[in-house]
Amino acid sequence: MASDVNVTAAGQALAEAMAAAAADVAEALNDLLPMPDGIEARLSEAMRYATLGGGKRLRAFLVLESAALFRVDRRCAARVGAALEMLHAYSLVHDDLPAMDNDDLRRGKPSTHKAFDEATAILAGDALQARAFEVLAEPDTHSNPEARCELVVGLGLASGARGMAGGQMIDMLAEGRTLTLEQVIRLQALKTGRLIQFSAEAGAILGRAPAPQRHALAAYGRDLGAAFQIADDLLDATGTTEETGKTAGKDAAAGKATLVGMLGAERARAQAAMLAAQAAQHLDSFGAPAEVLRALADFVVARRQ
Amino acid sequence: MASDVNVTAAGQALAEAMAAAAADVAEALNDLLPMPDGIEARLSEAMRYATLGGGKRLRAFLVLESAALFRVDRRCAARVGAALEMLHAYSLVHDDLPAMDNDDLRRGKPSTHKAFDEATAILAGDALQARAFEVLAEPDTHSNPEARCELVVGLGLASGARGMAGGQMIDMLAEGRTLTLEQVIRLQALKTGRLIQFSAEAGAILGRAPAPQRHALAAYGRDLGAAFQIADDLLDATGTTEETGKTAGKDAAAGKATLVGMLGAERARAQAAMLAAQAAQHLDSFGAPAEVLRALADFVVARRQ
Repeated sequence: MASDVNVTAAGQALAEAMAAAAADVAEALNDLLPMPDGIEARLSEAMRYATLGGGKRLRAFLVLESAALFRVDRRCAARVGAALEMLHAYSLVHDDLPAMDNDDLRRGKPSTHKAFDEATAILAGDALQARAFEVLAEPDTHSNPEARCELVVGLGLASGARGMAGGQMIDMLAEGRTLTLEQVIRLQALKTGRLIQFSAEAGAILGRAPAPQRHALAAYGRDLGAAFQIADDLLDATGTTEETGKTAGKDAAAGKATLVGMLGAERARAQAAMLAAQAAQHLDSFGAPAEVLRALADFVVARRQ
Repeated sequence: MASDVNVTAAGQALAEAMAAAAADVAEALNDLLPMPDGIEARLSEAMRYATLGGGKRLRAFLVLESAALFRVDRRCAARVGAALEMLHAYSLVHDDLPAMDNDDLRRGKPSTHKAFDEATAILAGDALQARAFEVLAEPDTHSNPEARCELVVGLGLASGARGMAGGQMIDMLAEGRTLTLEQVIRLQALKTGRLIQFSAEAGAILGRAPAPQRHALAAYGRDLGAAFQIADDLLDATGTTEETGKTAGKDAAAGKATLVGMLGAERARAQAAMLAAQAAQHLDSFGAPAEVLRALADFVVARRQ
């Protein structure tokens, strides 16, 4: 019984922390995204549509919570969280394009290329990426320019050819051919893992943390991201469109390679639980202040949307 | 006669400097772009195809020559030049997509989406953008992280919603509707002007130049970029596909708004010459070391491809 009470209390604290982070990052995004202006206003409208439409804000939450471990100014951390959400939003806009995953629905609303048009969606994604890097390098993000450069380099690695874009390339190549288990794990590590890992690491960069702490947060993010991806695939395989706000069953319909498809739902669920437990263990040295990040690892595998 | 000899000598010096810059930036690009590796090798192949295929390397040349005014280490300047060429290459890859300008030919070769496919082209552009920012922020680019951050912020401004992407948005919106002269000037200032301006300014950032010199180089780049765009439009209107390596007459066929279309070729040519002369004047305070940059202003309006 006591354990149940603790789980509930941790879950409650997590829900409150996530809501607070989502509010802070929404405010930062609103401030940092360009306001529609001039003849090209449609571009800023699409950027705002793609980014301000909600979502879990998992990446921003990881930045805020990992930065809090080092008592980083929350406004600085929110800028970094907003930049990572811009980067994530751009990737969703481009992934949804007809030439990529061709998805008309995102977060329960028309995808950006459906709400606007393909050209605008491509450009909005491009401009969101540029703005993400720009925000990280601006003086307001950190007083130490070395920290800002580390953030830019880290985001470049996480999102480029050896990160997110490389993962999406594998995903496109995987349609209609069979990947090995190892290749599927690499696909997911690149496509979603690297950016989630970097989100957790970003707090340590902002906090000028010593290497062991930075590595611990990166390892937490890596395992959390892997658990998150399996949970996402389980939702796609077993959830409904209403529950997830995305077109349900798309992966299977597109012949996409997922661990769920390869291992079956039960083994995939066990794998996610193992990864989540492992993620939490990386935080041992941080003690009580990391409780919310540990609760997040539980939440990620238990979530229903 | 003496003047003719000088023009020829200046032209010869410019041609040699541009060839040397192109060679140095090609080497830097080859080093900095990811090598094809792993299951996602197709992505690196497309990035290299889009970037290593030649071109004038105008942006890299501007970085190298403006940096040379401040005796910046040429290897550092070549890294920045390479980053700007990656950014430029990504914009060409995305502009050529069917949903944008739908152009099958670039630099006399199939566009990236024709040589590969649309999804790969979108991802290669995305990854080139990420790598461009990453290179600017890496320690090898400059010993002072403040300079690296200024480069990242400058590139973000030049290429994002208030720069290149915003200009391409206006260009897309302009198809099938009439822009005012003012709007066409804004279109071109954003679409190509900002990045060329920043290329010239980047040397001053690398050289930690005082504000007046940085502003002079930015003003030079702004006027040079405007002259360059008019010359480019003149080539499109009057050149052949063989001469330019691009599909000729595309702008008129697409109903694109250009100054050539609005003013006629003769007045546009006069405007370009005026802008080139103005560009050169911004370099007065730099004296003889800026001779090659002045010669570039002449070349830009005289070029045939």
